[in-house]
Amino acid sequence: MSFKIINKSQKSLARIGTLKTKHGVIKTPFFMPIATRGSVKSLTSEDLKKLGAQIVLANSYHLYLKPSLSVIKKSKGLHQFINWPGPILTDSGGYQVFSLGSKEQGTRNREQKKFVKITEKGVEFRSVYDGSKHLFTPKSVIKMQETFGSDIMMVLDVCSPAKCSYSQAEKDLEITLKWAKEALKHKSKKENNQLFGIVQGALYKDLRLKSVKALSTLGFNGYAVGGLAVGESPSEMYKVLDYTVPELPQAKPHYLMGVGYPEQIVESVKRGIDMFDCVIPTREARHGRLYIHSSSIIVHRSFYKTINIKSEKFSQDISPINKNSNLPELRHYSKAYLRHLFSVNEPLALRLATLNNLEFYLGLMSEIRELIQSNKL
Amino acid sequence: MSFKIINKSQKSLARIGTLKTKHGVIKTPFFMPIATRGSVKSLTSEDLKKLGAQIVLANSYHLYLKPSLSVIKKSKGLHQFINWPGPILTDSGGYQVFSLGSKEQGTRNREQKKFVKITEKGVEFRSVYDGSKHLFTPKSVIKMQETFGSDIMMVLDVCSPAKCSYSQAEKDLEITLKWAKEALKHKSKKENNQLFGIVQGALYKDLRLKSVKALSTLGFNGYAVGGLAVGESPSEMYKVLDYTVPELPQAKPHYLMGVGYPEQIVESVKRGIDMFDCVIPTREARHGRLYIHSSSIIVHRSFYKTINIKSEKFSQDISPINKNSNLPELRHYSKAYLRHLFSVNEPLALRLATLNNLEFYLGLMSEIRELIQSNKL
Repeated sequence: MSFKIINKSQKSLARIGTLKTKHGVIKTPFFMPIATRGSVKSLTSEDLKKLGAQIVLANSYHLYLKPSLSVIKKSKGLHQFINWPGPILTDSGGYQVFSLGSKEQGTRNREQKKFVKITEKGVEFRSVYDGSKHLFTPKSVIKMQETFGSDIMMVLDVCSPAKCSYSQAEKDLEITLKWAKEALKHKSKKENNQLFGIVQGALYKDLRLKSVKALSTLGFNGYAVGGLAVGESPSEMYKVLDYTVPELPQAKPHYLMGVGYPEQIVESVKRGIDMFDCVIPTREARHGRLYIHSSSIIVHRSFYKTINIKSEKFSQDISPINKNSNLPELRHYSKAYLRHLFSVNEPLALRLATLNNLEFYLGLMSEIRELIQSNKL
Repeated sequence: MSFKIINKSQKSLARIGTLKTKHGVIKTPFFMPIATRGSVKSLTSEDLKKLGAQIVLANSYHLYLKPSLSVIKKSKGLHQFINWPGPILTDSGGYQVFSLGSKEQGTRNREQKKFVKITEKGVEFRSVYDGSKHLFTPKSVIKMQETFGSDIMMVLDVCSPAKCSYSQAEKDLEITLKWAKEALKHKSKKENNQLFGIVQGALYKDLRLKSVKALSTLGFNGYAVGGLAVGESPSEMYKVLDYTVPELPQAKPHYLMGVGYPEQIVESVKRGIDMFDCVIPTREARHGRLYIHSSSIIVHRSFYKTINIKSEKFSQDISPINKNSNLPELRHYSKAYLRHLFSVNEPLALRLATLNNLEFYLGLMSEIRELIQSNKL
């Protein structure tokens, strides 16, 4: 068994454990910084190691289109290509196909949106880069992720919008389950990559439970809850977790895709989730929003705050970006300096802000693991 | 004496030595990476130390406008504000006033150009950021650089264009010499900052020599040759150095401002220059042009080459960016990966390219010093 549970909290469904992968053992619960195009915005692998990142997530959709599979194959895999020796999880590309497809509608090209075509065979789409036509199938995305050498691969799924009709969600789920079976069938027996199934069903309890039941029978290495953080409220999301997670195989890792804000991570861990990824820390860094730890998670509901470092009020604030940071960069550069870098568009601004936010997120996971160990969460 | 000559080449006017400053001793000849707005594009101070940078140059004009003097004063100086513990040279701001002034003419606002107004008192200009009016005087730029705590300060000068008339160059020089005297008068006796004079005179030998003679009498800590690399040909520039540098005080450091390409640095060292700064390595990094060492300086005239890493031909090149680099980043990331980062606008691209180019320039200076030591240059 690659997943071992070390301790279960007596206060909630939270658990700590270890997840063994081809490229190392990860302590759970964990957070995955996002290397969309094979790079965590502005950081090197050395930076990620210093931050204590255990694993990164890369997006198959983007890497498939650019730089394309050939050079990754030539590099003998994604780890070598992006120079990251630790574990990598790759998504199936499906989510990007749908989300980038819909974005196009409002902005450039209605035809492009229309062109995201789901059939039982797979999903046809046009590249955001050059409009060229492509097809992802349950098999092709497995083969692609095997070419990457991903430690954890995700199945191709149809991510229903939060507010979709029952009949739409049911139809999407049907295809998702069909594809899940095919994905398993095409997974190479020679490789010891792990393959995760994805629970769908929008906000419909019976569909979610049907999804869980079907996937559990198939036997995946882990189970993701997909189709959340796509427009529903946090309480709707927690409700789905409340009835879904207890029905998942308990001996396998549980992954909540695309979530979320710090308090959502804490709430989801309490509901039995072990794995997270989210663009928030890196995306908000780009806009100068910094996450600041303010008290222990269990002491106060508002255990953190965010500041807009671009604000005029930091122009004379010569205190460190974070005096308690493990990183000399964040202890030695001042808030006023970082504010200045943003105000004159210096690229170092993004790097310092990203370091700050990822340190916060990874530190949060570390605190969560300690609290579960001591039965406080 | 803060400047000590250790060895003079028997083959040329090249010399090696040490320049002692408030923040450390620098081996000469040296190159200064440019931290225009208080940051060497995308790099931290740790990166600069790893690269072996001995000193950085910051631009007074930009820092004066943004973040402005108040926060630098509050930080107790520029070293603390930009978190760089080594020596800093700041320019007087004059060059930016003129060069940014003229750029405006062709682009946005003829009024702005017209508004760069030189009087005997100083130079009036409008901010590139908000159009506000400002005045730099020989005294004010010294006081500004003393506020920065600069190790090496530059006098306010009038940089004549390469192709200017004799009468214009003569007039500019007259003001430059007047300002040089005033600058010296206003330099604080309490601080042990060094102050450098700047030789002007365009391409007119008698004006250059007049400038040298007048400045030498005044007694500066070092002497810069200004008004070069502003549009003249390399051979015109070398000609100016040929008759100017031998007349400068030989016991003082000689600084060629804003130069240049690697072969120009080598040629200028042979003509007795000890100090350089240039935007080339950082600016060209932004455009994906990488400097690659190819043979010893003395073996072959073309001792380096540049490559355009954005070119399609690197898309499958999985060889390291620089297998001989001292930096793990440049040994472990491939050319194909760097090309990919540029092609999808990942900010890490700029960082890796900047590291490569600065390592090349700083390595070039190190090779130059060794060759002078062994009388080979």
